[in-house]
Amino acid sequence: MRQLAATMDRQGDTTAAGNAPVPAPARLTATEAAARIATGDLTAAALAEACIARTLARDDAVRAWTVFDPGMVRRQAAESDAQTPRGPLHGVPVGIKDILFTRDLPTTYNSPHFQAHHPNMDAAVVSLLRAAGAIVFGKNDTVEFAVNGRRARTRNPHDPDRTPGGSSSGSAAAVADFQVPLSIGTQTGGSVIRPASYCGVYAMKPTWNAVSAEGMKACAPSIDTIGWYARSAGDIALLCDVFAIAGDGRAAATSLDGASIAICRSPVWDLAGPEVREALDRCALLLEAAGARVETLDLPDRFDGLTNAHKVVMQCEMGSTFLPEFTALGDALYPELVAAMRNEAGYGRAELRAAYDLAAECRARFDALADGYDGVVTPSAAGIAPRGLDDTGAATFNRIWTLLHTPCVNVPGLSGPGGMPVGLTVTGPRFADRRVVAVAGLLGACIRDDAGRSHGKAVE
Amino acid sequence: MRQLAATMDRQGDTTAAGNAPVPAPARLTATEAAARIATGDLTAAALAEACIARTLARDDAVRAWTVFDPGMVRRQAAESDAQTPRGPLHGVPVGIKDILFTRDLPTTYNSPHFQAHHPNMDAAVVSLLRAAGAIVFGKNDTVEFAVNGRRARTRNPHDPDRTPGGSSSGSAAAVADFQVPLSIGTQTGGSVIRPASYCGVYAMKPTWNAVSAEGMKACAPSIDTIGWYARSAGDIALLCDVFAIAGDGRAAATSLDGASIAICRSPVWDLAGPEVREALDRCALLLEAAGARVETLDLPDRFDGLTNAHKVVMQCEMGSTFLPEFTALGDALYPELVAAMRNEAGYGRAELRAAYDLAAECRARFDALADGYDGVVTPSAAGIAPRGLDDTGAATFNRIWTLLHTPCVNVPGLSGPGGMPVGLTVTGPRFADRRVVAVAGLLGACIRDDAGRSHGKAVE
Repeated sequence: MRQLAATMDRQGDTTAAGNAPVPAPARLTATEAAARIATGDLTAAALAEACIARTLARDDAVRAWTVFDPGMVRRQAAESDAQTPRGPLHGVPVGIKDILFTRDLPTTYNSPHFQAHHPNMDAAVVSLLRAAGAIVFGKNDTVEFAVNGRRARTRNPHDPDRTPGGSSSGSAAAVADFQVPLSIGTQTGGSVIRPASYCGVYAMKPTWNAVSAEGMKACAPSIDTIGWYARSAGDIALLCDVFAIAGDGRAAATSLDGASIAICRSPVWDLAGPEVREALDRCALLLEAAGARVETLDLPDRFDGLTNAHKVVMQCEMGSTFLPEFTALGDALYPELVAAMRNEAGYGRAELRAAYDLAAECRARFDALADGYDGVVTPSAAGIAPRGLDDTGAATFNRIWTLLHTPCVNVPGLSGPGGMPVGLTVTGPRFADRRVVAVAGLLGACIRDDAGRSHGKAVE
Repeated sequence: MRQLAATMDRQGDTTAAGNAPVPAPARLTATEAAARIATGDLTAAALAEACIARTLARDDAVRAWTVFDPGMVRRQAAESDAQTPRGPLHGVPVGIKDILFTRDLPTTYNSPHFQAHHPNMDAAVVSLLRAAGAIVFGKNDTVEFAVNGRRARTRNPHDPDRTPGGSSSGSAAAVADFQVPLSIGTQTGGSVIRPASYCGVYAMKPTWNAVSAEGMKACAPSIDTIGWYARSAGDIALLCDVFAIAGDGRAAATSLDGASIAICRSPVWDLAGPEVREALDRCALLLEAAGARVETLDLPDRFDGLTNAHKVVMQCEMGSTFLPEFTALGDALYPELVAAMRNEAGYGRAELRAAYDLAAECRARFDALADGYDGVVTPSAAGIAPRGLDDTGAATFNRIWTLLHTPCVNVPGLSGPGGMPVGLTVTGPRFADRRVVAVAGLLGACIRDDAGRSHGKAVE
């Protein structure tokens, strides 16, 4: 296993994941690929062929897809090449998590009960991607219903014996493995950010409801969030443009020199593994070396209740969102879902009300605390990806941000034991999406430069 | 125009709306019809024929449907009659607002741009109705996208020169006119409760997210709420059972004698017309006469900001939910929607954050204020249904409850000028749905008894 820094080094011709050569166009970021397609330096067909070749070569090892039809990809690419570029993603392949509707491919939820399920419409996010010119490359494997139950078959591209994380397992792995430059995931607990941390890619969970969740199989609507994966912070920002994410009117940092950054260990810091502690310390040193003012942000005691509040909200809302499936399938659903539907935890409505109110109180309080910083850095996961595919890791470090509705971007580039990726999250107040992306890009570049120096490599 | 009390008098053989006779089975409540079908006293086919006959006879006058296929209704009824009753709504026809997906009928949103739109799946609420044995009777006309733009063609069954209210225009009118015993609507502002008030039927907007909104064209997901219409409080409760609405663990009132009821004039009381003031006064007198302890609940000044906060939340959330349609259709959409998409009001993210936080603060405060009562009574609308079909009335008296997420039930039976219905809302803390329905039933019976006495009629 190579050091993670190499994953970010697009000058090379192999990936961190193995020795299979990556076809050159498949190495491009979405921004680069779209620019070359727009100038005629690259065709959508050539990009599609590169991504198809990479996917076919690696599918036995990575298994990132539930539904993948090269013919359909080729048809879309041919259509793109026959058109004048019509949007910022013209001809760019995107992976779609298999709980989001696609009119031309089934949406199986990776559930044995929905293998033939094929809504004839696009999720809102898929419509927007197509309108921007993107090509739907296939459906990414997911933990069943993006909750629990059946795991994705996906393996971590950096180590086939380890999970890519979940539930957006295939979305994270496909981007990390250069099969597609972009993919879409969803997060209700830690399902976008954690897999990004484990697979060593950028990912964004925007402010809640900044992107319409229509056409996503709902789990807990008050916290369900559409997110996306990419191999550069620029690509993350490009998708912010495609999804028309508004800024909050405040200027984003353009340099770490003079920027104000908080390090927030979060209320679950006790669960952080040594590699995460090291990563956060390393990050603080790098930020200071880059001229940032780095402070520690300790959250008030009230925030300690958020992890449990998240659990209450999620379980109680599942009681309504999965009622149609439970009514139809009952005990044929997997046991944890049946237990949630039967409310075996015994959550009462007073408990749910208290959970909502605590979340709301802490949203306002966190925003006030975070408003003074350009970004807040916090762990993306408790450690590196666990071994095996059954344990997809814990959402421990993500739940509170999901419940707080704050924008989160995973920044890759640091690594732990065996070179496995360790991601860090940049977050901030609600609606600071654009500012958070900017700081994530600056931090990512800073980490990459440092890794380049440490490894004696040329840095782009 | 006859007095509204007669609408509730199911002994008669004509409706408040005109002289056309109503076929006897079409007069039944859902509870009565299901009971007769279960015992074999009535077939689903006979009930369907009665509702079809009533609908065909009245459709020119009321125009409650965008899509209605008697053959499909008959096929479902025949299937029901061939089965052992399989749920509490076995063989009962239900109208579905035309922004909710139905696998066997188009979902047009009453938009000129979506006339051929036909998702091949059922909304969650439609799945649950079918699982309970219900028959999808047709799609109810709605204001375009349930927001504004094109109005429903529907007329008020009590006066064809007046609006039935909106946006759930057809859902309210179809139930009021005995075309179906039940129907489904949706509310983001006042779209369930206001039409119920104007049309003189019961309706419920449950606590936000108590019923999954999957398969509903979203408008503002943090406040979009599925609701339902019926001609009895018992039917409202029956749908609470079908949708598995949990109680909050507190006992519901079983009698008004000794019950504790608050009258809340709401922060927009200045806009209440004389008929609404009279109705609320009459209600207070009736409650006291029935032995209830009646108090006035004045909301704190902070609540004055909720009407504007509702507007900010709705307009800003529309920016993401309608982005796919705006991207595809641009200025071809109706002007108010285009203006919202362009954020011509100029709402910033700081304003949205403040709106969310005010709503959250007032939710907790209202719950604390309302927890001491069995129910809180407040106006359902500013007056009777306006003249004409263009002005569907204002959601003024509903917005704050929608934003507060509280359960609301419209209680019919009182009337204003020309005998036009004037509804009152019973509300309460979040998750007090079952208790609110109980009080609404008691209040409705009390109003009906009083009307029966006033009109010298026999009261059931």
